[in-house]
Amino acid sequence: MITENTSPAAGTVSAEEALKYLLLLVDVSELYNHSLGTYDFDLVIMVAEKSKKDPKEYLPFLNSLKKMEENYQHYSIDKHLKRYQKALHHLSKCGPEHFTEFLNLVKDQKLYNEALKLYPSDTQEYKAVGDAYGEYLNQKHLPEQAGLIFARCGAFEKALDAFVNSGSWQQALCMAAQLRHTEDKLASLARGMAGKLVEQRKHMDAAVLLEQYAKDYEEAILLLLEGAAWDEALRLIYKYGRLDILETNFKPSLLEAHRNHLLFLETQKAMFCRHKKRLLVVRELKEQARDGLLDDEAPNCPESDLFSETSSVVTTSDMGSKYTHSNSRISARSSKNRRKAERKKHSLKEGSPLEDVALLEALRDAIRSTDSLKGEVRSLLKGLVLFDYDAQAQELQQALEETLHSMECSLPVIWSADLQHGPANQVLGPNSTANSIMAAYQQRRSVAPAVQDAELLIAPKLNKNIQWKLNLLQ
Amino acid sequence: MITENTSPAAGTVSAEEALKYLLLLVDVSELYNHSLGTYDFDLVIMVAEKSKKDPKEYLPFLNSLKKMEENYQHYSIDKHLKRYQKALHHLSKCGPEHFTEFLNLVKDQKLYNEALKLYPSDTQEYKAVGDAYGEYLNQKHLPEQAGLIFARCGAFEKALDAFVNSGSWQQALCMAAQLRHTEDKLASLARGMAGKLVEQRKHMDAAVLLEQYAKDYEEAILLLLEGAAWDEALRLIYKYGRLDILETNFKPSLLEAHRNHLLFLETQKAMFCRHKKRLLVVRELKEQARDGLLDDEAPNCPESDLFSETSSVVTTSDMGSKYTHSNSRISARSSKNRRKAERKKHSLKEGSPLEDVALLEALRDAIRSTDSLKGEVRSLLKGLVLFDYDAQAQELQQALEETLHSMECSLPVIWSADLQHGPANQVLGPNSTANSIMAAYQQRRSVAPAVQDAELLIAPKLNKNIQWKLNLLQ
Repeated sequence: MITENTSPAAGTVSAEEALKYLLLLVDVSELYNHSLGTYDFDLVIMVAEKSKKDPKEYLPFLNSLKKMEENYQHYSIDKHLKRYQKALHHLSKCGPEHFTEFLNLVKDQKLYNEALKLYPSDTQEYKAVGDAYGEYLNQKHLPEQAGLIFARCGAFEKALDAFVNSGSWQQALCMAAQLRHTEDKLASLARGMAGKLVEQRKHMDAAVLLEQYAKDYEEAILLLLEGAAWDEALRLIYKYGRLDILETNFKPSLLEAHRNHLLFLETQKAMFCRHKKRLLVVRELKEQARDGLLDDEAPNCPESDLFSETSSVVTTSDMGSKYTHSNSRISARSSKNRRKAERKKHSLKEGSPLEDVALLEALRDAIRSTDSLKGEVRSLLKGLVLFDYDAQAQELQQALEETLHSMECSLPVIWSADLQHGPANQVLGPNSTANSIMAAYQQRRSVAPAVQDAELLIAPKLNKNIQWKLNLLQ
Repeated sequence: MITENTSPAAGTVSAEEALKYLLLLVDVSELYNHSLGTYDFDLVIMVAEKSKKDPKEYLPFLNSLKKMEENYQHYSIDKHLKRYQKALHHLSKCGPEHFTEFLNLVKDQKLYNEALKLYPSDTQEYKAVGDAYGEYLNQKHLPEQAGLIFARCGAFEKALDAFVNSGSWQQALCMAAQLRHTEDKLASLARGMAGKLVEQRKHMDAAVLLEQYAKDYEEAILLLLEGAAWDEALRLIYKYGRLDILETNFKPSLLEAHRNHLLFLETQKAMFCRHKKRLLVVRELKEQARDGLLDDEAPNCPESDLFSETSSVVTTSDMGSKYTHSNSRISARSSKNRRKAERKKHSLKEGSPLEDVALLEALRDAIRSTDSLKGEVRSLLKGLVLFDYDAQAQELQQALEETLHSMECSLPVIWSADLQHGPANQVLGPNSTANSIMAAYQQRRSVAPAVQDAELLIAPKLNKNIQWKLNLLQ
């Protein structure tokens, strides 16, 4: 508004008139700030006078502004008005003597990206801003992004540290190359990073570091064996002519992996059977409790202790019609429960209200973790066959096959049709009444447990795409 | 039985008596074969005589057997009785002059595994059997397993070919080492395999071959760029001091990948919107058709053409109670449909009976393929930021963010609560009657489409674990 009024075409008189009118409508200090924002001192003073502000209040400030170089003046006004991006822009034009002030403003207001755009990337200023940005990102626990920024502004030492900290080993090596590290220094950097990668079970990456940068071929091969990367281990064994490792480490590692897999499968199978048995018991108990309630002919009464918690969570939508008043409380509680459930899994403790859900979850997890072994096991089977351990290979293939088979056979029992659709459909015969259908619904609720995660009600799928078995073992 | 009767304690007389009795009970030629299987000629002749067989039939055969060396005799009897595993065992003891016969039996009866167990692995026989086994596995299109067997029996040339054919490049290199390939030969082997790996989009593996075996560093780097393996490409660029490639290829590749990603996201978004719109139309149409039927008060009448196919598949369980006689036919048909659906996806053609299912599937796939970009995009964003392409990085991050956001916002519309549970719950009020509940059921059926894959009725989950965004771009 002010901009239009102060345009030459409008003239001073109409501006004054407009101002008077404006002062009736708008807050005085807001108008003062707006006029200040135009960097037009005549206008500012006019507004200040009309606003009946105390001149002692604004004149010293305006006078000090008037004495400043234009860019610095604009910067000072922008800063006063908290227009930090504009302030930054004007300050950047004030020459190197104001750069410290610039950098402080960048840090205070976290205007790093904006600041980087104000200087060409080969300037000292760009580097200084980048350096500060990197430090800031490091503080924010974003070392990888800090590394990228450090690298961009040539702070290679800091970039190297940041990349090492974030596990970006390839980028770290690039920085080491920029810094012209000696071979020894490079080797020790590689060893350090390899150690960290092994902790994250990234054995292949760790082996590349040891092979190519520390030139420690034997250690590289041992890491690959530790990571069950049999093919890659063999490749290095032959590449470096270290066939002695076949006997000393390769075969023993194969056999150890074989034992571990068998043990794991045994544990999974036993746990699966135990959970499945218990699930059927829990379902039976719930059904009995429900039947007891139905016999009392009080389908709307508060539910038994055994699954009261359960129902209050599941049946939010369906209780809504009955208890509209408490709906918000219930849904707030249910979403709180949901968040809680997402944080920690449901309790498998016997008798806990969501025990059936916890069991379903545990059963699903057992199936998934067994199914996900297929690739690994195939790779191990190939290693065993290559070194004549046919009997062991056969044993392992059979063990996984049997475990998967028994799990698959249990799917219809655990994830019965009732679980997803409820038995209500079968109840809709010609003789059904509202009460019989209601009863069926109540029963259905007792079978289908309280689940926030709808996926839990669907049988997990086994991966049929992966051909993991070796035909020659059959 | 026979074994017991011929034991010394039982004596010949009781054996004869038992035999007479047995002949009343058992088929004659079966008993003859059993006796032959004991390799006891006295017993065989006794059985033959009592059985009133023509001596011209069996005597020449028995006489020829009697003249044979014992192992060969046992082998011949086993073979005659089609006991091939035993036959193989006996034949393996007959010395090298019978090895051709042995090998033919192995091939005829595919007893490779059994045969390998009969010879120590350092013998010519073991190698010959292994060689035949490998050929057999190759014929069965199992080149990797053929390679393992060839390698085991020292047929390294054949193993090399088999491993190359199966894409087992590491194993192939091991074989080349065994064969003491020259550097040139190794390089050309590596180039050949790298080409095949690139076709399978295994750029990292291909690059290892070119770098380490063909020593073609530039080509290795270009492959990594083609595979969008930015970190690894940078590592090799610095490892081999080829910083010129940063300008000639790295940056152009980054920008190309940036363009491709934006284009892909745009296409996904447009397709998603189109399918979503159409799904709502199809649902509306089905509901209208259903309402029309309900108005006629004929909820059990054959359904309209629009979704007749649909219902005949879905409602198997619920039609079962009404049409018990045709149940088996229906379920046979539904499982046939299921198999068909698994082979090819449902038709997206407008008006096709399972159009809503096809649309759900297409929407889910669009969400999954967009969600799965996160890792790739993060890696690309890092590359862009490293080389000062902040604007492009920002654009891409925003594009993916917006696409994912709009998909996520659509989830409750596409995978509405009705879809999984049906609106029936809300109908179970105090005033509900059997008819009102029935009607609700019918309606529910029209909303929830005919789905064999229950997962389709559940909203796909976006991966919240991956932190793909760069904070510095926000």
